[in-house]
Amino acid sequence: MGPDPAVAAVRLAVRGALREIDAGDLVLVACSGGADSLALAGALAFEATRSGHRAGGVTVDHGLQDGSAERAAEVVGTMTRLDLEPAEAVRVTVGTSGGPEAAARDARYAALADAAARHRATAVLLGHTLDDQAETVLLGLARGSGARSLAGMPRAAGRYRRPLLGLDRDLVRRACLAMGLDPWDDPHNGDPAFARARIRQDVLPLLEEELGPGVAGALARTARMLRDDADALDAWADRALQEAEIGGDAGTGGGAGVSGLSVEVLAGLPRAVRTRVLRRAAIAAGSPPGTLAAVHVDAVDALVTAWRGQSHVDLPGRVQARRRYEKLLFGPSESSEI
Amino acid sequence: MGPDPAVAAVRLAVRGALREIDAGDLVLVACSGGADSLALAGALAFEATRSGHRAGGVTVDHGLQDGSAERAAEVVGTMTRLDLEPAEAVRVTVGTSGGPEAAARDARYAALADAAARHRATAVLLGHTLDDQAETVLLGLARGSGARSLAGMPRAAGRYRRPLLGLDRDLVRRACLAMGLDPWDDPHNGDPAFARARIRQDVLPLLEEELGPGVAGALARTARMLRDDADALDAWADRALQEAEIGGDAGTGGGAGVSGLSVEVLAGLPRAVRTRVLRRAAIAAGSPPGTLAAVHVDAVDALVTAWRGQSHVDLPGRVQARRRYEKLLFGPSESSEI
Repeated sequence: MGPDPAVAAVRLAVRGALREIDAGDLVLVACSGGADSLALAGALAFEATRSGHRAGGVTVDHGLQDGSAERAAEVVGTMTRLDLEPAEAVRVTVGTSGGPEAAARDARYAALADAAARHRATAVLLGHTLDDQAETVLLGLARGSGARSLAGMPRAAGRYRRPLLGLDRDLVRRACLAMGLDPWDDPHNGDPAFARARIRQDVLPLLEEELGPGVAGALARTARMLRDDADALDAWADRALQEAEIGGDAGTGGGAGVSGLSVEVLAGLPRAVRTRVLRRAAIAAGSPPGTLAAVHVDAVDALVTAWRGQSHVDLPGRVQARRRYEKLLFGPSESSEI
Repeated sequence: MGPDPAVAAVRLAVRGALREIDAGDLVLVACSGGADSLALAGALAFEATRSGHRAGGVTVDHGLQDGSAERAAEVVGTMTRLDLEPAEAVRVTVGTSGGPEAAARDARYAALADAAARHRATAVLLGHTLDDQAETVLLGLARGSGARSLAGMPRAAGRYRRPLLGLDRDLVRRACLAMGLDPWDDPHNGDPAFARARIRQDVLPLLEEELGPGVAGALARTARMLRDDADALDAWADRALQEAEIGGDAGTGGGAGVSGLSVEVLAGLPRAVRTRVLRRAAIAAGSPPGTLAAVHVDAVDALVTAWRGQSHVDLPGRVQARRRYEKLLFGPSESSEI
């Protein structure tokens, strides 16, 4: 008799991730003690002995709740019993920058990166599931900033891997229990002060009710496709930017020198590529990526596609896009030079 | 003193649409008698006299509700008072194909196309607002089939124009009332039997509550960007398909002949483009677009990117994709030839 089907599914997913990592290398699992990452830890321990990888685990103690140190110690105990080595808890200090969720995430990833470097781990496995991905897409949707913000979390980025991204949270939880592991339910996951918790508890269930079951899966599929789209268009825009660049002062001065783009080349590009090229040029000229919005890029685009003699567009960061005959120039605002 | 700001916004949007239509041409407005299309009719009547266009209106009587003929006659009366010429009601018979919403839409667009042809109208204006666009995106999201299904409704397609796509429904309604026009509220818009009505009444308000105001605007912006993305990637895929096509029987036989693609060319494409090329090739070989899903295309993609000797993939419509050394062949299933 084989293992429980849920356990088999989680192990299969981990096996797929290990296939892309050299045997003998150390793979760490980031384990909060929740059902998702506990199932991931159990599957990693099982698979690594078969595939010839070394397997360890790290739990991050955010220090935000009473008893968090004791809980971290329990997770270390569980990881040790799974024969993960190293099995360690790392205490972090969570700041306030970007709000409580972003600050906790920043501190957590810094600690994981540090642990991976200390132990010379090749990969760090993260326990995000299909449901986490769907929540991420909905959070991105509310920002309304195109394919990249809807592309969710990548399956692999740097040393991070998310083997469970195609699996339902319910299935992963069943696998955790079937492995005989005792998950801890983070009260923050149900705290409506957090946008993600509200999405999980209120928004996704209503969407499933109103639009039919399978919405989470549809959101996750959408994310994967839009990530591919964004990658392809970014690559196109990188090439197109080089083709559009013309002599002028481009690349001769400092980072904020005036660079010129050929209006003729720009006009021949599809809008999706042209707006990406214009965004890159504005950022290269010093406009801050976080403040430069679609509405600014659209205004620059009008200098190319709907020119009626307007001379320039002011962009965040005291940057100006100027139309000079068949050239588009990006540089410091003229008003800032007065 | 100028007009009410809401009226000014609707008129400005209509003026923008008329700018792309030759003066002297006839422009029809599709008017249900609801606030959105009534405001559109009022703004068209006002702007057309200034821009030198001829303006008419059509209302479609779906015959689905008691008194629909009387209501259509009232709308004709309003359009006549606005000096729209022609001002006519067209009675349609709604089928059942694709569900009640799709059947009513199909009948409506057929009637509008017919009216435009009879009157030799250059353009037909539709009253969809930013909120309609957001609802369309959410309906597409539940399908989970990539950028095209999230791209919402186009601002212009064929002879149709949607000048109000960037304006809130609330603003357009205020404009309608400020123009002294008396809107009719379609009870179907509030009938929870319709997916769109459920999105409007339950889903969008919850999203606004949980994710902050402006979700509808974010969805509409997203739709516009994803439409641009899909257009650019479709154009790239069209070119890449030509580059990947190699001799074989491609183009020599009937529509379902075996066509061959170069694995080397395919492997050099970004995934977003390659999957679009593979989808085109499968459809050209006879696989029905409505049934051919991402999971099928992914299996064909594995013949290119993760080939471990598997010989073929079966696709809907008795089509097979076969790997033969450095070629990918699309043709009738071999089993269907037995």
